[in-house]
Amino acid sequence: MEPRPLDALNAARNKRVIVELKNKTQLIGTLKAFDIHINVVLEDAEERGEDGEIKRKIGTVFVRGDAIILISPA
Amino acid sequence: MEPRPLDALNAARNKRVIVELKNKTQLIGTLKAFDIHINVVLEDAEERGEDGEIKRKIGTVFVRGDAIILISPA
Amino acid sequence: MEPRPLDALNAARNKRVIVELKNKTQLIGTLKAFDIHINVVLEDAEERGEDGEIKRKIGTVFVRGDAIILISPA
Amino acid sequence: MEPRPLDALNAARNKRVIVELKNKTQLIGTLKAFDIHINVVLEDAEERGEDGEIKRKIGTVFVRGDAIILISPA
Amino acid sequence: MEPRPLDALNAARNKRVIVELKNKTQLIGTLKAFDIHINVVLEDAEERGEDGEIKRKIGTVFVRGDAIILISPA
Amino acid sequence: MEPRPLDALNAARNKRVIVELKNKTQLIGTLKAFDIHINVVLEDAEERGEDGEIKRKIGTVFVRGDAIILISPA
Amino acid sequence: MEPRPLDALNAARNKRVIVELKNKTQLIGTLKAFDIHINVVLEDAEERGEDGEIKRKIGTVFVRGDAIILISPA
Repeated sequence: MEPRPLDALNAARNKRVIVELKNKTQLIGTLKAFDIHINVVLEDAEERGEDGEIKRKIGTVFVRGDAIILISPA
Repeated sequence: MEPRPLDALNAARNKRVIVELKNKTQLIGTLKAFDIHINVVLEDAEERGEDGEIKRKIGTVFVRGDAIILISPA
Repeated sequence: MEPRPLDALNAARNKRVIVELKNKTQLIGTLKAFDIHINVVLEDAEERGEDGEIKRKIGTVFVRGDAIILISPA
Repeated sequence: MEPRPLDALNAARNKRVIVELKNKTQLIGTLKAFDIHINVVLEDAEERGEDGEIKRKIGTVFVRGDAIILISPA
Repeated sequence: MEPRPLDALNAARNKRVIVELKNKTQLIGTLKAFDIHINVVLEDAEERGEDGEIKRKIGTVFVRGDAIILISPA
Repeated sequence: MEPRPLDALNAARNKRVIVELKNKTQLIGTLKAFDIHINVVLEDAEERGEDGEIKRKIGTVFVRGDAIILISPA
Repeated sequence: MEPRPLDALNAARNKRVIVELKNKTQLIGTLKAFDIHINVVLEDAEERGEDGEIKRKIGTVFVRGDAIILISPA
């Protein structure tokens, strides 16, 4: 069976990921949960601005899927 | 069973959360309700601008899900 | 049973509410009706600009849900 | 039974309404038809700019619902 | 039975219409087809800029519904 | 039976078309496939900027429907 | 049977592709997976800016479909 996109998210569960948002910020955190809308939950997350500097520590964060551009390993 | 994103919102019920909106403002309040569209209701809420200053006290507020980027513990 | 977001709108029926729109204006009026899309109808409504000044009196107004950011008691 | 938002549109049928669009123009016309997407048809319509001046007479016009912010009596 | 918005489009079939797009251009052409998404097909179409000047002749054109603001008789 | 918008796309299959995108670029290519979301595949495609100059040759390209404004014969 | 748009993506599986995003960046990588929403997974990916320079190496990346404009062979 051909791999599906959500398989890649499943493989990243409990690992550090970068979530790039449409508002030009990035969240870095441990991927704990996701669903078919690509709503995701990160733990131990922090927000970075366009230039890569840490803007704030967030802890646990729920991100609405439609705000997300891409998710990749940190 | 793998955790799902809405589990994280459920765990935050009756706790203080920050709701970051697409219009670059933040709402801080007690999470009272949410649904699958990520429509949420906050109580004792206040609105903060991009620089973190309080813009106004709101009390109870219904926020339409598609205006939301992320939700995290306050 | 856990409260749902539309319960908060139901509790605000026939009361004065502020409806904040994505186009940066606010409508103040009496909430007469709403549906699951968050389409709402206000009566005795007026429109306010970003600086809070009244721009015009509207009377009854139907607002399409996807233009709405949030709804709170006036 | 509680009133629903589309009841307000139904009450406005054959009456003059203002339709405010996301592109910052307003249409004034007689509401002849609408559907659940809030697609509407106006007759004897004219378009006004942000400053209220008449930009052009249109006659009959079909407006796609997702371009609409609000509808109110003229 | 109350008239529905698509009835107005049906009445305009084979007639010259103006299609106003979200990108601030207008298409003028003969309405040959439409569907419930308001995807439309025009024949003998031309594109006009914001100032009304003809930008180019197109011939037949398929327009995706979600790019459309309104449709009116030419 | 009345013609439907997708009939026009079907008639353009294997012919040169211009696909105008929401990001203000145009793709010119041979229409090989489309679906109800107006996702399309072009072959021997090239991308043109707002001023009509060729920006790059692409070859085969899959275009997501919601990025498209209109499709017309080249 | 007429070819469908997703056939073209299937033919590109395990090949190098360019994914052009609505935020004006490009991803270059090996197409490993896609679904009907055009969510895609690339491997050995890198991000390029508007001027074609490599901005960063990403490795594996999940891209949300609605952030994508087009996909073409690299």
